[in-house]
Amino acid sequence: MTKPSSTEAPDDDPHPVVRPALAVVGATGAVGSVLLQILSQRADVWGDIRLIASARSAGRMLAVRAEECEVLALTEDAFDGLGPGDVALFLTPADVSARWAPVVTARGAVVVDQSAAFRDDPEVPLVVPEVNGHAVRIRPRGIVAGPDCVTAAMIAALGALHAEYSLCDLVVSSYQAASAAGRSGSEALRRQLSLVAGTSLGEQTGDVRRAVGEDTGPFAAPLALNVVPWSGELREDGWSSHELAVRGETRRILQLERLPVSVTCVQVPVLTGHSLSVRARFEREVEAPHAREILEAAPGVVLVDDPAVGEFPTPADAAGTDPAWVGRVRASLDDLYALEFFVCADNLRKGAALNATQIAELIAGEFA
Amino acid sequence: MTKPSSTEAPDDDPHPVVRPALAVVGATGAVGSVLLQILSQRADVWGDIRLIASARSAGRMLAVRAEECEVLALTEDAFDGLGPGDVALFLTPADVSARWAPVVTARGAVVVDQSAAFRDDPEVPLVVPEVNGHAVRIRPRGIVAGPDCVTAAMIAALGALHAEYSLCDLVVSSYQAASAAGRSGSEALRRQLSLVAGTSLGEQTGDVRRAVGEDTGPFAAPLALNVVPWSGELREDGWSSHELAVRGETRRILQLERLPVSVTCVQVPVLTGHSLSVRARFEREVEAPHAREILEAAPGVVLVDDPAVGEFPTPADAAGTDPAWVGRVRASLDDLYALEFFVCADNLRKGAALNATQIAELIAGEFA
Repeated sequence: MTKPSSTEAPDDDPHPVVRPALAVVGATGAVGSVLLQILSQRADVWGDIRLIASARSAGRMLAVRAEECEVLALTEDAFDGLGPGDVALFLTPADVSARWAPVVTARGAVVVDQSAAFRDDPEVPLVVPEVNGHAVRIRPRGIVAGPDCVTAAMIAALGALHAEYSLCDLVVSSYQAASAAGRSGSEALRRQLSLVAGTSLGEQTGDVRRAVGEDTGPFAAPLALNVVPWSGELREDGWSSHELAVRGETRRILQLERLPVSVTCVQVPVLTGHSLSVRARFEREVEAPHAREILEAAPGVVLVDDPAVGEFPTPADAAGTDPAWVGRVRASLDDLYALEFFVCADNLRKGAALNATQIAELIAGEFA
Repeated sequence: MTKPSSTEAPDDDPHPVVRPALAVVGATGAVGSVLLQILSQRADVWGDIRLIASARSAGRMLAVRAEECEVLALTEDAFDGLGPGDVALFLTPADVSARWAPVVTARGAVVVDQSAAFRDDPEVPLVVPEVNGHAVRIRPRGIVAGPDCVTAAMIAALGALHAEYSLCDLVVSSYQAASAAGRSGSEALRRQLSLVAGTSLGEQTGDVRRAVGEDTGPFAAPLALNVVPWSGELREDGWSSHELAVRGETRRILQLERLPVSVTCVQVPVLTGHSLSVRARFEREVEAPHAREILEAAPGVVLVDDPAVGEFPTPADAAGTDPAWVGRVRASLDDLYALEFFVCADNLRKGAALNATQIAELIAGEFA
C-alpha cells in the first residue's frame, strides 16, 4: 500500500479530505501494468492504493504514483478496511472476478470489473464514461462493468454519431492486437516473429505454419505474417463468443436493444492497438463533413482524417494514447444514410485500464 | 523463347497441332515469377512461350516448363511473329500496358492485361473465368482484362452466392498482403520486420514509427506490427482509388451496375494472401447450411469452415494455392437476407497470375 490510510491530511492543509481507497486486483498483468502508469499520470483522486494479484506475484514491489508498493496476495484479508466509498478495480479473468467481486461488495465498496463476468447482468451497468457515464449511479449489485476492448474502441465515436443521426444498422470488422490476449499473447507474437524472421520466407508464405510450429500460443493459428479470423469460443450458428459479445455490449451501451449488428473478429500481427472498420447506417441522412465535425467534438475521440497528407489512424500511432483515433470518414456512395469510418484505440488503455479508471473516478466523484 | 515456333510437330505425332504462342510481358516481376511457376504446373496448351521485360532485365535466363528461356527487352521487335490466335499476357504497370497493348493487338494477337489500364473500358471485358468466362469472347479491342487482386479474392464465392440468392448489398473490409505492391512491397515489409525485431518493443508500440523510420516503402505508414487503412490514390469524398476500383469491378463482373458496395482497403503485415471480411445482403432469404453447400460446389472456391476444430481460412494457408478459401460462413442474426463470410486467396495467383493464365487458356481454347 502506498499510503497507510484512506485519510489524507497533510500538516499544511486546514481542510483534510477523505479520499477513497482503491484496490487494484490483477495488478501484475498486462492491463495491470498499464493501469499503474495511468494512475501515476492522471489527477490523483485516491487515498490508499493497494495492489493485489495471485499468490505467486505477492511480495513483488511495483511503482505507482512514484512510490513503491508491495503486491498483496488475493485473499479475504487483502480487502480488509475497504468500505463504502472505496473502489476495487478487477483486471482479472472472468472466473476470478465472479469469485471475488462479492467479497468486496459485501464490505460496501464498489467493484469496477473489466472481465466478461458481469457484462450481461441487467443489474450491472456496462459503462463507457464518454457515452453513458450517468449509468454508473444505478448499480443494484454494487458492481459496474467495462466493455470488451473491441466494443470500447469504437463506442465513443459511434455514440456521438448515434446521438446526432440515430444508429439503425452496424457492420464491423476488427483488426485485433495480440496483447488483448494478455502477456501470453504479446509473447507468442514476438516469439513467432523471431521464428519466421529466422527463415528466408518467399512470397508464398504457406511455410509460416512450418516456421511457427504447433505452439501458436493463445491464438487459433500462427499470427506472425498471418491474420486469424477467430477469437473466443464457438457459439450458435458459427458465431464466436467474442463477436456476440461486441454485438450485445454495443446494444446495451447505446440502449438499442434490437440494433442489427454484424461483427467479424480478426486477430492481426500487431502488439497493441485494436483497429475496426465500421459501416454504420442511420435513420437520418449523413454528410461526411458534418459527421467529421461531430467526431471532432466527441469526447474521447481524435479525428485524424486527411489521407492526402498521409493522415489516417493506425494502431502504431494509437498505442500508448488515451483516445480513439478516427479517420477514413466517408459517406456511402450508394446510400444517403450510411457512413464508413476506421478507428484505432489502445486495447490496454481505452480497451481496459483507462476505461476502468474513468469509471472508478466517476464513482470516487460521487463521494467528493 | 523456349520453342522456336508456334507449330509443334514431334516426329512421332501423325496429327501435328498448331498451338498458340504466348508472350509474357513483365516476366521478371513478383507476379511474373509466379506466372512462370503456374505455366510449368498446368496442362500445357502453349506453343512458343516468350518472356519479355524491361531493358534492364533483358538477357536474364528464367525457367519455364523446365526449360531455360532468355528474357527479351520490351520493344516492337519482341512481338514479331505473334498473330491471330496468339496471346500476350501483360503483368505490367498500367502505363506500360496502355502503351504496348495496341502494339500486340495491331498484330492480331489478343492481350490479357492484369493492370488497371483497361478495367473500366466498356469495350474490354473484365473476366474471372469461374464467374463470367463467357465474356472473353466479346472483345472489340482485342483486349481482355483481369480484376484487381482484392476483387479477385472474393468474386468466385460472391458470384456463386449471387446466382442463387441475387446480391443486393455488399460491405467489404480487406486485409491486404504486402506483395500486392510488388517486390518492393515484400522487401519493405521484410526490412521493417527486421528493424522492429531489433528493438525490444513494449506492449505500447508507438515506437514502431521510430524503429521503421521515414522509409516506409510503397506503404503510406509503417506496416510491420501495424495496419495501414490506405491503398491507392485519393479520390472524391475521402474514398481511395483502390476502394472505388473494387466497387466498380464487382459491379461489372456480376453485371449489377447499381449494386451498393462499400469497401475499406487495409494493408496488413502479411507477405502473401489477401483476406476479406464480407457482409453480403441478398434479395432472397439465406440459410447458412445451404450457403455452405453452394460455396462447396462453387468452382475456384474451397470451403474451410469448422471453427470447432480450428478450421477457418488464413492467408498463410491460402498462399501458394489456387482457390479462394472461404470460411466463417454465418447467417446474420438480425437479418434473414444477410450472410457474413471470410475469404483468403493468394493475391499473386488468383489475384493476378492465375486468373490471367485462366483467361489466356480460354482464348487458346477458342482456336483449338
